[in-house]
Amino acid sequence: MQQNIIERKIMWGDLDALGIVFYPRYYEWFDACGHLFFEKINLNIGELWSEREILFGLAETSCRYFKPARYYQSIRIVTKIDALEEKFLILKHSIQASTDDTLMVEGYENRICLDVSDPKNFKAIDIPEDIYTMLESAKGELRA
Amino acid sequence: MQQNIIERKIMWGDLDALGIVFYPRYYEWFDACGHLFFEKINLNIGELWSEREILFGLAETSCRYFKPARYYQSIRIVTKIDALEEKFLILKHSIQASTDDTLMVEGYENRICLDVSDPKNFKAIDIPEDIYTMLESAKGELRA
Amino acid sequence: MQQNIIERKIMWGDLDALGIVFYPRYYEWFDACGHLFFEKINLNIGELWSEREILFGLAETSCRYFKPARYYQSIRIVTKIDALEEKFLILKHSIQASTDDTLMVEGYENRICLDVSDPKNFKAIDIPEDIYTMLESAKGELRA
Amino acid sequence: MQQNIIERKIMWGDLDALGIVFYPRYYEWFDACGHLFFEKINLNIGELWSEREILFGLAETSCRYFKPARYYQSIRIVTKIDALEEKFLILKHSIQASTDDTLMVEGYENRICLDVSDPKNFKAIDIPEDIYTMLESAKGELRA
Repeated sequence: MQQNIIERKIMWGDLDALGIVFYPRYYEWFDACGHLFFEKINLNIGELWSEREILFGLAETSCRYFKPARYYQSIRIVTKIDALEEKFLILKHSIQASTDDTLMVEGYENRICLDVSDPKNFKAIDIPEDIYTMLESAKGELRA
Repeated sequence: MQQNIIERKIMWGDLDALGIVFYPRYYEWFDACGHLFFEKINLNIGELWSEREILFGLAETSCRYFKPARYYQSIRIVTKIDALEEKFLILKHSIQASTDDTLMVEGYENRICLDVSDPKNFKAIDIPEDIYTMLESAKGELRA
Repeated sequence: MQQNIIERKIMWGDLDALGIVFYPRYYEWFDACGHLFFEKINLNIGELWSEREILFGLAETSCRYFKPARYYQSIRIVTKIDALEEKFLILKHSIQASTDDTLMVEGYENRICLDVSDPKNFKAIDIPEDIYTMLESAKGELRA
Repeated sequence: MQQNIIERKIMWGDLDALGIVFYPRYYEWFDACGHLFFEKINLNIGELWSEREILFGLAETSCRYFKPARYYQSIRIVTKIDALEEKFLILKHSIQASTDDTLMVEGYENRICLDVSDPKNFKAIDIPEDIYTMLESAKGELRA
């Protein structure tokens, strides 16, 4: 099973008036970490788009907040594939405190495979076989 | 049952490179619409915080995306209470196309009642009775 | 002279940990208000892009902050053309307190006319004559 | 002269519909890099605030855009003190392409020293002597 790990510090601009992270920021990080995960398994989203007119669009996202993150705290975002189906995959993003591994936030992105060749009308399609194989291998099922 | 309705246009800064709304923006709007909903039922969050040191923090959020929103499209965000319990309430936000009422996006915020008097350690508490009554009335259960 | 006026409330998600607006938000509003200004003078940026492959890109922006804006405060953003040249225009955005007209923030966007037909290589061009005439009229110089 | 250097990749969420960075993002990065710069010279903004009720607020910001940054491009943000006066300092942020050092964006933040002990009324004050000395040393004037 492959995973992408990012370490970052909570910055001033991430905070709300309570001094804790404003929750839509977590989704911005999930989106970025999803792209970095794809890159890590050699699936460059920019190339996928420009060369094959395929992207993984969002069908559903969700997030649970266990512990608020505060200014200058170090966090670790761990991203991996939680589920893989013909037309979609689910990415799981876990945010831990870098210091003691406490789970702070946990989120999911359900990303469906889209043919975006017509910019006005995206179509859900089956994940192409070569990409499915890469995702399957990253998910780790073949290693059983 | 009370609801808050906001009309807005999709602006350039809401878009991603595909020309559709970047999904964390929806959560920013949900957060703002939640506050406007509270204001509409006479629950001013700023006063609640400064006078009683109580806030409604996020325990969980989720969102489903049915249809992408594009530049300068007019949308309507309808916010109402979906569930009310001793310690939390769930807000439901529905985003429709203003022109034909198509459902584009649907999201939920599970907000728990927090005592924030200690800025370093927020505590989940029962929703105070006077506020619970306001929320219950806004939810519309008393009207049966 | 034409101007675009927007009234908005400061929302929770606009604030930083000091409880005042996080300054990049002002630029997001300037960008949106610029687009609304163009729309008001019948220059639809979406059409300009899709039909003529022209956009007004940023060469320079600046902003001065006189008074911090706080939660739920009502502000007014007034946008107008401050300067117009062959290849660019400068938009001026003034943010006032809605209640007493105090000037809170003042910003400028220097927008140059770009041929974006090659997505990898934007080129600065003279503002096309028909658009220049609309901008000149909006600036109000013809009314002398 | 001290400087803070950050390397980052342009992520999907940084882009606008043209596929280039949406300009308010640059200011978000400037703000974060300013805080990292302060940290680097041992001026922790969080402690400054909680222990001495002092912060460096924005009086003015500006930015020039020379070359658009695109998806997954690697950039380098270099931050240093450009000017230091009794009541304020100016931070200069230069963004270069990591690959060939091309200057892409250049920005300035004029930050004034604020007494924030009264949350409703911030007051501009002289930079305290011990902090001024740290900033002066970081600016490098003492090395002549």
